[in-house]
Amino acid sequence: MKRKVLLSLISNLAISAIAIWPRPQTMTVGSKALKISSSFDITLSGISNVPQDLLDAISQTKSAIKNDKLERLVVGRGAADATIKAGAKELGKLVVSLEGVKGNVRGISEEAVDAIENRIEEYTLDIPADGSAATLKAKSTLGLYRGLTTFQQLWYFWDGTTYTVQAPVHISDSPKYPYRGLMLDTARNYFPVQDIKRTLDAMSLVKMNAFHWHVVDSQSFPLQVPGFMELAEKGAYSSSAVYTQQDVKDIVSYAAARGIDVIAEIDTPGHTTVIGNAYPQHIACNGKRPWANYANEPPAGQLRLASPATVNFTASLIDAASSLFPSKFFSTGGDEVNQRCYNEDPETQQSLKTSGKTLEQALDGFVRATHDALHKRGKTAAVWQEMALEHQIGLRNDTVVFVWISSDDAKAVAKKGFRFVHAASDYFYLDCGAGEWIGDNGGANSWCDPFKTWQKSYSFDPTANLTQAEAKLVLGGQHLLWTEQSGPQNLDSIVWPRAASSAELFWSGPGGNVSEALPRLHDVGFRLNQRGVGAIHLQPLYCALRPGVCDLTA
Amino acid sequence: MKRKVLLSLISNLAISAIAIWPRPQTMTVGSKALKISSSFDITLSGISNVPQDLLDAISQTKSAIKNDKLERLVVGRGAADATIKAGAKELGKLVVSLEGVKGNVRGISEEAVDAIENRIEEYTLDIPADGSAATLKAKSTLGLYRGLTTFQQLWYFWDGTTYTVQAPVHISDSPKYPYRGLMLDTARNYFPVQDIKRTLDAMSLVKMNAFHWHVVDSQSFPLQVPGFMELAEKGAYSSSAVYTQQDVKDIVSYAAARGIDVIAEIDTPGHTTVIGNAYPQHIACNGKRPWANYANEPPAGQLRLASPATVNFTASLIDAASSLFPSKFFSTGGDEVNQRCYNEDPETQQSLKTSGKTLEQALDGFVRATHDALHKRGKTAAVWQEMALEHQIGLRNDTVVFVWISSDDAKAVAKKGFRFVHAASDYFYLDCGAGEWIGDNGGANSWCDPFKTWQKSYSFDPTANLTQAEAKLVLGGQHLLWTEQSGPQNLDSIVWPRAASSAELFWSGPGGNVSEALPRLHDVGFRLNQRGVGAIHLQPLYCALRPGVCDLTA
Repeated sequence: MKRKVLLSLISNLAISAIAIWPRPQTMTVGSKALKISSSFDITLSGISNVPQDLLDAISQTKSAIKNDKLERLVVGRGAADATIKAGAKELGKLVVSLEGVKGNVRGISEEAVDAIENRIEEYTLDIPADGSAATLKAKSTLGLYRGLTTFQQLWYFWDGTTYTVQAPVHISDSPKYPYRGLMLDTARNYFPVQDIKRTLDAMSLVKMNAFHWHVVDSQSFPLQVPGFMELAEKGAYSSSAVYTQQDVKDIVSYAAARGIDVIAEIDTPGHTTVIGNAYPQHIACNGKRPWANYANEPPAGQLRLASPATVNFTASLIDAASSLFPSKFFSTGGDEVNQRCYNEDPETQQSLKTSGKTLEQALDGFVRATHDALHKRGKTAAVWQEMALEHQIGLRNDTVVFVWISSDDAKAVAKKGFRFVHAASDYFYLDCGAGEWIGDNGGANSWCDPFKTWQKSYSFDPTANLTQAEAKLVLGGQHLLWTEQSGPQNLDSIVWPRAASSAELFWSGPGGNVSEALPRLHDVGFRLNQRGVGAIHLQPLYCALRPGVCDLTA
Repeated sequence: MKRKVLLSLISNLAISAIAIWPRPQTMTVGSKALKISSSFDITLSGISNVPQDLLDAISQTKSAIKNDKLERLVVGRGAADATIKAGAKELGKLVVSLEGVKGNVRGISEEAVDAIENRIEEYTLDIPADGSAATLKAKSTLGLYRGLTTFQQLWYFWDGTTYTVQAPVHISDSPKYPYRGLMLDTARNYFPVQDIKRTLDAMSLVKMNAFHWHVVDSQSFPLQVPGFMELAEKGAYSSSAVYTQQDVKDIVSYAAARGIDVIAEIDTPGHTTVIGNAYPQHIACNGKRPWANYANEPPAGQLRLASPATVNFTASLIDAASSLFPSKFFSTGGDEVNQRCYNEDPETQQSLKTSGKTLEQALDGFVRATHDALHKRGKTAAVWQEMALEHQIGLRNDTVVFVWISSDDAKAVAKKGFRFVHAASDYFYLDCGAGEWIGDNGGANSWCDPFKTWQKSYSFDPTANLTQAEAKLVLGGQHLLWTEQSGPQNLDSIVWPRAASSAELFWSGPGGNVSEALPRLHDVGFRLNQRGVGAIHLQPLYCALRPGVCDLTA
């Protein structure tokens, strides 16, 4: 008897959890079943000159609804829904329309890469239970894209039928923060274009909108930059481990069509050893050992920031690299500058002597030059936190700062008045907890132990310790994957579904409850699996089918 | 200039590291190149009635040499070898022969599942540099299989040529310990047969010989046991998440042909909740909550060990399950028995009252019954350490014990005179360090934090604190994957190449140097990648191409 009561309780719990991720701002659902008609279609109403990427998004949505074939995560899976499905109406149509858009309709791709303050992602979605047409409305094609993504998450499959058990559905939704990102390092280890596209697909499902691409670093330079082709020729791991200009175009347009802005990074002046393969004159302490004296990881090597020739070279490189990306943001990095490297570099010391500058003054000039180059292109620089907190340099007021060392540092960045992105190692570093990767440091923990669970990042408070004015400087946040210990083999398993936790945090806002979220997060993971993304299981399937039963207090 | 010196140093280091894993007991190598001839063949000499599995192994070896196409992990990859390859001879033939085998030749599959003390894995391999035939000799087909595996690891590919740069090669090899294993839990989450086969392929490459299959647990019962078909019917996650008897045959024969014994486990009396789906009368505290009072993880439920009917049922189940596996070993588990579950179970208390036994006496009878069933089939029972250390029960002297809670417990097991397998959570648990999986225990670490690096397990000492007599009780060791947080998506990335560290430890013996081992371990990982196993990168490729350069002290 006890067991029966238990199962019925579980079943109710499950039915109350509609699995949209991130959680919409407002949502009401019913308890009626509704099936997708075999003739189901998505039509556009009142939109002239329909952008191709909106047509593509509609086509992808129809495919997803047909092909996801996700079974509901309840005991018995879809078999449990037979009774409720018996009298279900069929949904034949979703009507998509833009509100308040006059004249030329901009495509999703254009809106996704617009200045962050100009993007509109809100939408409303209505799905009646009686079989009459569902409607999706937004003020932008980007908003329509978000709504289509939500629509995709409503449906389950069993025994030939695609259905929901919670019609009618009304959703009115918009993001709490405009920046919801994922950073990927493609320099420590290389990731083929297809891996990046698969990652973008997964990001778009959880409404992430920023792909922070840490494309090069000291170990390899896989990016073909116009005018600087030797960098990849001599700095990529191999001739096939390269992002050609065509690859970049492909990635950028693939991302933009999915509502994702690609914020590329050429980290400077540190993390640049490999530039010395093609331009040895620009790199100080190139490969100098012991590396631990001159860099945070091997190999040592930094741009000769005090050399006028190197400043010019770097500004030109940043200018050329930024031309590949339509984003208004471009990151010049700036983390972990090693002073001893410069102190022991005769060329740098000579340059300082000649100019009469201190190292900090030279850094100031170096950063101004690269940021000026971006400014001339109408772009805004992004930097790692040290540039704002540890150095005495003049950053433009509009500079965006990535807070990475500790979430506690957000306050100091905010005090300086910079807009910033939460990217702190104590919450959002996906690579922590896999042990030290340095070869002979056997058995040591990773520097940022322990592993950051999805619950940890999900419980983050973006405005902790901030004043109301400072809180307005929070653009959002991102998970990050540094790839010393990863490659295509474990990209999906490290990132998914864990990174979805920050996607919801920064879309829906903080304060979510992990017990409420977990069943939906399972759903995200299993849906990603259906789409070929290797999201991992967070619990035994036993638990995934029985919300709450594997809680500590259950 | 400095850079050139550095590169030449690195190059020398790399050339000195032949990448056989595990390290052979004795090996001499030269510095001449030798190519695989396009007409290369492996022939048998003096073996009558050649077993089919030996022919298959030869065929697989030829395929591997042709298809691995692994590039050497040095700067410039194979391009660096052009000069040395110029005058290389071609190897046309490997001649395989058995020594001292009279009469009927047993196949690899038969030898792999023989009693552990009867197996012979030694072999000698000679590869001249002058193009004359290479020879592989062993006293058993199992030894030949190990030698063929070594032979596969000698070759690299570049520009159309398969070659080595270290001929001549002489290897004389045998394992230090007879048990080198991997445990996989297929109950918390299910793994399709193809994932298990891929794992067996990877295991065989590093000469592991024991697949400890923790096939069922409280959460699901995916094993079809003859006479007990309801267990999988009502206890598997779905009708497709089942190992049919044909699947088991397939897995067992696939393993045996690769020199691997499959040691299956039906964990008893704990970890059995799911049995209650089909046989509720046999399970105490079935699903009782809060689960944490009655089990180490949800759901609670244990076999009613004091009930004569349950004892008979369990002995019959173990007997039937063990009949599916040719191994001489079968594990009856025995970990984490929860006393409170029995104390609060009226049926168990009634049984104890009726029989006049204490709970420990009932456990003794329960274990005797299952072990007697195995003994009657000529099999030896294996158990988790609690059965030997925490309970007052009479185990047969030949019982094999898995030491899992702590490596420190090996001493106590040895003192009791039992043979044992090192499987300690502090060295060999692959699932540690990924955070707590219990739903509402946000941000907590895994119970066995931190992550166990390959360096940690590689540095294990199998006979620490043991007398010489006790040291003889060490059968070997194994890595283990409990799958609360894994499934097919992250099986390879969690296990490989990390688990290769214990494979070498227990084949080659302890005392290996991590800096020497790392380049070879990279090689194993990349070779596994070539074979479709998703082994992860342990370092940036930059480091993998430059042995030693990413050591802490470099």
